[in-house]
Amino acid sequence: MGSLTSSSSLTINQEKLASSLHESCQFGAAHRWGKSTEETGMARLALDDTDKQVRDWLMEQAKTLGLKAFVDEMGNQFIVRPGKHSDMPPVMMGSHLDTQPTGGRYDGILGVISGLEALRTLVDSGYETEGPIGLVNWTNEEGARFPKMAVSSGVWAEAVPLQTAWDLREVLAKDGAPKSMKEELDRIGYCGEHKASYKSNPFAAHFELHIEQGPILEDEKLKIGVVKGVQAFKWFNITVKGRDSHAGTTPLYARKDPVLAACKLVAAANFIAHEFQGLATTGIFTTDPGTVNTMAHTATFTLDLRHVQDEVLAEMVKACETEFQRICKDDSEQGCEVQWELLVDSPAVEFHSDCIAAVEASAADVCSSLPEAQGGKQLWKYMISGAGHDSCYTNMRVPTSMIFTPTRSGISHNPTEYCSPEDCALGANVLLGAVLRYDKQRAKPSS
Amino acid sequence: MGSLTSSSSLTINQEKLASSLHESCQFGAAHRWGKSTEETGMARLALDDTDKQVRDWLMEQAKTLGLKAFVDEMGNQFIVRPGKHSDMPPVMMGSHLDTQPTGGRYDGILGVISGLEALRTLVDSGYETEGPIGLVNWTNEEGARFPKMAVSSGVWAEAVPLQTAWDLREVLAKDGAPKSMKEELDRIGYCGEHKASYKSNPFAAHFELHIEQGPILEDEKLKIGVVKGVQAFKWFNITVKGRDSHAGTTPLYARKDPVLAACKLVAAANFIAHEFQGLATTGIFTTDPGTVNTMAHTATFTLDLRHVQDEVLAEMVKACETEFQRICKDDSEQGCEVQWELLVDSPAVEFHSDCIAAVEASAADVCSSLPEAQGGKQLWKYMISGAGHDSCYTNMRVPTSMIFTPTRSGISHNPTEYCSPEDCALGANVLLGAVLRYDKQRAKPSS
Repeated sequence: MGSLTSSSSLTINQEKLASSLHESCQFGAAHRWGKSTEETGMARLALDDTDKQVRDWLMEQAKTLGLKAFVDEMGNQFIVRPGKHSDMPPVMMGSHLDTQPTGGRYDGILGVISGLEALRTLVDSGYETEGPIGLVNWTNEEGARFPKMAVSSGVWAEAVPLQTAWDLREVLAKDGAPKSMKEELDRIGYCGEHKASYKSNPFAAHFELHIEQGPILEDEKLKIGVVKGVQAFKWFNITVKGRDSHAGTTPLYARKDPVLAACKLVAAANFIAHEFQGLATTGIFTTDPGTVNTMAHTATFTLDLRHVQDEVLAEMVKACETEFQRICKDDSEQGCEVQWELLVDSPAVEFHSDCIAAVEASAADVCSSLPEAQGGKQLWKYMISGAGHDSCYTNMRVPTSMIFTPTRSGISHNPTEYCSPEDCALGANVLLGAVLRYDKQRAKPSS
Repeated sequence: MGSLTSSSSLTINQEKLASSLHESCQFGAAHRWGKSTEETGMARLALDDTDKQVRDWLMEQAKTLGLKAFVDEMGNQFIVRPGKHSDMPPVMMGSHLDTQPTGGRYDGILGVISGLEALRTLVDSGYETEGPIGLVNWTNEEGARFPKMAVSSGVWAEAVPLQTAWDLREVLAKDGAPKSMKEELDRIGYCGEHKASYKSNPFAAHFELHIEQGPILEDEKLKIGVVKGVQAFKWFNITVKGRDSHAGTTPLYARKDPVLAACKLVAAANFIAHEFQGLATTGIFTTDPGTVNTMAHTATFTLDLRHVQDEVLAEMVKACETEFQRICKDDSEQGCEVQWELLVDSPAVEFHSDCIAAVEASAADVCSSLPEAQGGKQLWKYMISGAGHDSCYTNMRVPTSMIFTPTRSGISHNPTEYCSPEDCALGANVLLGAVLRYDKQRAKPSS
């Protein structure tokens, strides 16, 4: 691609972006932490009633803008505005509207609503793009209800078989037997007729605006992350089997206590993560059956291991395997058995250089107008995403990159998650600028 | 009291004892571990349908023996055989028929069925005791379903208010809202009309035969434990509060991870227990809400701390408090908050010297006839119980002591819990001998 100069003077309306975002959050608002209407978190689990409501709201928004919208068989929602050349695939802006059970108002939501406001800005201004520009709301990105994150962009990328996704069952059944994704798609009327595939529904590129979900931009007083890739991660379910026996009458030497062993393993994984400068997290820990005065026979916990390099992540896993084995064999909990089950294996991702370049040019342009940029201070930096995103799957099939905005205290997956209206609008403008740059560039003959 | 010579030549029928025990275990049998009918564990939770069935069976047994049976308002079942002096309170044999969710066939059950067979032996022989002799099946000793162990002997001893006990709600609701003890007593028809009180329903003494639930008798090739008391224990519910945030984007330095902190606390409690030669056990560990890639905001775990001396137990608790505080304040999980809730406080118990003397005399007598006793080997020893029992409460109001039998590999609260038919019968004979000695002694004028 050639040079990427400023594309237009189009600007997203900060107030409208904020009001759209909070309007969409009326569906699934939960976990109040402050007095104002907007000071709550979210509990909008994929395909639940509130997710249906926000989907209906999004369809209504598309209708108001006079744009075509459609839904594929994974419930992914697409809204597309035509350009000069209708034969071109659309440049897409995408993220997700589902949240964690104790989630916030920005993770995923900011990306979708910014895309919507970008489309509104194009419609309102009558700006004519080269090819179509579109928005996608991916289903169940969080993997919080149906335990496979970004599963629906995965089906679109043909990296996850449709049936596997449809058969996923909710982690916690509210009432009765756990429901499958297909059952819930049907129930809320969002199992669309379009095939979920990049082949029948191709994109030109995919751009995703997202909150950083970490403290780096805030700590370094920066405004935008130009995301070059995503760190590798692996999710495991670890089962430790011991022997249930009486807490009052079993001497310490005679115990095979899986809960104590599992606690030592969790602490060991954390120690290893420190050593390798990676991350280790246990979010779920259960004991079975266990009462106050009986050791459980089984303890299970999840282990999420991450590192920016695939090779180092592999070494971390190996170090954990060795240490877990040692603790269960030679430590006081000798005789406990440890079993590993791999749930997710997500290698490190490198985004497309053309998309990164478009984001970088847009970030440089938008940031340069800020008062903080006086004296030539650069307010953006290259980053590697700590979290997985739908963009990891789209990147398998089409040029992709991401944009990060600051996140207060680095807190995400928490009701108090926050990105200021100014920072949201800044991110949305970088998104729009990147999309328009990419769109303009693709129309040019290769240089 | 004076000397305690051999009281009679009455002997419990070993085969009948075994067949009665396993007949009673048809109600609630679960967790098969071997091929024969008897090679299962038990899941007979207090006041569930199988507990009702075994209670009905016990009432039927009393009827067959022509003995009076009644039930108090806590569902405690009493069966009494009259003696020469009907104005005397009965010498009682007591234990419990409820089990842990993955329990065995001996814990509690052996004590009740041995009492039943002792009564049968008295009836069959026509032996006339000085005062009445009786049997009691205490409700919800395990505290596994309704979270307060030995609660019903506690009400009888007026150490636990009736309403407090009635209001206890089941730990895990099978369906719908958790039911209260009172609701379940009413449902299965075992909320009797007799007041649950040692005042209106007095005993002369309480003897409890129980499996050791530990490895000591087996390790030392002994047959009977003459139990002089019960170690002190305290049960706590520990809550650790941190901050839920994203597993992939929150650097280790910025975390307040309550799961990691709680794991370190569990390991620390175990270390402290080793140091003080006491016991520390965590049977239940939960995370809230927690998903694979989100730290929980709260981790909770139970902590069962034990020591034979009250003062040392107090020191253990203090050491845990200090260390927990240190870990949550200065360790990597700085900023987590730890809260202690005391669930049970059971001080060390010293049984009554008269009852201990009766058990000792009976044990010496019964054991001396065994082939292993050749050469004068003493096959019994004094012991301190590691577990709490109904006898702790009865001991508050009437002379009490206990008898222990060997337990294979020391395993209890486990489906494979086992005490051989020979050892069961030996224990039952020691029980009968102790009761008859105590009964004979009480009729004598004080020496």
